[in-house]
Amino acid sequence: MSETAEDTEFELPQLYKHHVFACYTQRSAGHPRGSCGAVEAQPLWDRMGKALEAQRLTDIGFTASGCLGFCNAGPLMVVYPEGVWYRPTTAEDIDEIVESHFKQGKRVDRLVVVLTRR
Amino acid sequence: MSETAEDTEFELPQLYKHHVFACYTQRSAGHPRGSCGAVEAQPLWDRMGKALEAQRLTDIGFTASGCLGFCNAGPLMVVYPEGVWYRPTTAEDIDEIVESHFKQGKRVDRLVVVLTRR
Repeated sequence: MSETAEDTEFELPQLYKHHVFACYTQRSAGHPRGSCGAVEAQPLWDRMGKALEAQRLTDIGFTASGCLGFCNAGPLMVVYPEGVWYRPTTAEDIDEIVESHFKQGKRVDRLVVVLTRR
Repeated sequence: MSETAEDTEFELPQLYKHHVFACYTQRSAGHPRGSCGAVEAQPLWDRMGKALEAQRLTDIGFTASGCLGFCNAGPLMVVYPEGVWYRPTTAEDIDEIVESHFKQGKRVDRLVVVLTRR
């Protein structure tokens, strides 16, 4: 049998220009791991979701996620395919990510976090 | 003021070789939208998570997600940065994705779903 793996490596059409995953994990206030929810992430993500909808940015996917694994770095979100991790903390941060990254394609470096696997 | 956007477009180090998001949404059996949970997705995702851990594939990120938005195409998962959407339905499908895609870098075309935005 011949090797056919290469045959399958055509590019698939991409569903989204950017696909955002935002951590909605909520642990109790005293939990030792903390959580994005404990540092008020949810209102930020809700603002982002509403902005995408209001501005009809239908090529931006937005998905609530469980724990992204770096709980002390939250509020945490990641944007693919580019693999950019952001830590926004204010409504203005959210608006800047939407305007700059999603609409203009310019990463917001001041909000980027570079994480390292443990 | 000069345009500095280009200055920021260096490549960031990537946290994961592949980052999987698997839908854990569970709606009730009679819900009109259905859900990945209603078609027995959770045992599949649990198997995947355990396989990654058992085989120490620490460069593969695995995150539980909320609804990925194509409920009648579930069980649904997406792998980034390549943006490959899979619909596995058996334990063997999960094992093949782990072995072929994650370990050998060969997409499993028979399990791919190509979705279109509504």
